Amino acid sequence: MIKSLVQLQEKSKSRKQTGTFLIEGRREIELALKGGYVLEQLLFYPEVISGPQVSQLNPSGQIPLVEINKEVYEKLAYRDTTEGVIGVARSKSLELDDLKLSKNPLILVAEAPEKPGNIGALLRTADAAKLDAVIIANPRGDLYNPNIVRSSVGCLFTNQIATGSTAEIIAFLQARDIRFFCATLQNATVYDQQDYTTPTALVVGTEATGLTQQWRDAATQNVIIPMEGEIDSMNVSVAAAILIFEAKRQRGFKR
Amino acid sequence: MIKSLVQLQEKSKSRKQTGTFLIEGRREIELALKGGYVLEQLLFYPEVISGPQVSQLNPSGQIPLVEINKEVYEKLAYRDTTEGVIGVARSKSLELDDLKLSKNPLILVAEAPEKPGNIGALLRTADAAKLDAVIIANPRGDLYNPNIVRSSVGCLFTNQIATGSTAEIIAFLQARDIRFFCATLQNATVYDQQDYTTPTALVVGTEATGLTQQWRDAATQNVIIPMEGEIDSMNVSVAAAILIFEAKRQRGFKR
Repeated sequence: MIKSLVQLQEKSKSRKQTGTFLIEGRREIELALKGGYVLEQLLFYPEVISGPQVSQLNPSGQIPLVEINKEVYEKLAYRDTTEGVIGVARSKSLELDDLKLSKNPLILVAEAPEKPGNIGALLRTADAAKLDAVIIANPRGDLYNPNIVRSSVGCLFTNQIATGSTAEIIAFLQARDIRFFCATLQNATVYDQQDYTTPTALVVGTEATGLTQQWRDAATQNVIIPMEGEIDSMNVSVAAAILIFEAKRQRGFKR
Repeated sequence: MIKSLVQLQEKSKSRKQTGTFLIEGRREIELALKGGYVLEQLLFYPEVISGPQVSQLNPSGQIPLVEINKEVYEKLAYRDTTEGVIGVARSKSLELDDLKLSKNPLILVAEAPEKPGNIGALLRTADAAKLDAVIIANPRGDLYNPNIVRSSVGCLFTNQIATGSTAEIIAFLQARDIRFFCATLQNATVYDQQDYTTPTALVVGTEATGLTQQWRDAATQNVIIPMEGEIDSMNVSVAAAILIFEAKRQRGFKR
């Protein structure tokens, strides 16, 4: 059992085969439960977390509790500061067709983000903006990677997320009349000159190479964030946040 | 000599005592030279970088070149991927009074940022927006920390930077009639309802505790970025970017 849990932490293949992944931290587990994730087990190390604290994470009483010892806990715990509890959670569907969108959706699409930390940062911003969904095009790894779980500070569970190929996502957006704006460096209008108040997807690429031609050709409009400094490079989560909050501003926040 | 170089990399105290620090990477060294930093030495490891490549970094021919061997290079090199060259650079003054501001400055102030990576990200955004200056209030460490050098991808050298206590910086801004807007979670108007087209400083605090009372009491106006999700926390570099680019939008970029 220990070995298979360690593999859940370390190997994408194990996560895919079993359809499960690990969640560390009390707040993260609470957010996962609130987000409708099913927990198959709660592993707890009683030196660090008390019985009542564990029970709080199991209000229905239906999640099997498993006491683990120090050695196992330290093998599984991924973070420096830990909270004595690890959930074994069932992955969710990441199908485009399972997304539930509002009548006037605002969506973020990120193509092949390089780093788990960038995906986590995108998910945090998406949560703050209460986007309808975050869609990852051509993901480089599985979304239940422990670095994504951690860097999203639980926002992996508060957002609707889907993955797909670039072609699938373009078809999905076009079928729903969602206009999509692709962040690029060339042949683009300044981002604040576009109207994001109707159904909108904002599309960002990688820091290294930007978006693929496929996105730029299909875009409703390519948009650029003007950069006036020495370095022509912006962190992808920063670029996405600038676009997302321009759209939020145009939509008037919740006023 | 080796030991003192390693200490420059590892110890803030050594950097302060000698007034020097290390810069890794060709692009970073180029940007430092362009930014007016003085290099005292260029250390190079000839297995990785060629003579002509080193000379390119020394157009005046006045920087002493020091060939180092593999062992020394590996001790000093901080990054995973390296480029065979390390500069020993003289620190710059970080005095508020040395800042050269335009007639209508746009400034970022960050109070006590926790992580070197956050400072690097702030500097990248500041470069993209061509801010007049970045001011760090009550810094927790020295700015020439190798993690800041690295995460700023050279933007440590393309920005004007100063440090000071919160009281000093408030006095500095007030003496120059620079309005300052403090990002907070309470008692604040929505950030897009303010006018940033006159001399402006945007002030952000830490992710954990926000800005101190001193800033919030003195602010021209406290401003809030509305968060509508489950998590009331935003990466500090993301929050700063949203504010900075709202100011840039109002100022019309370079149109």
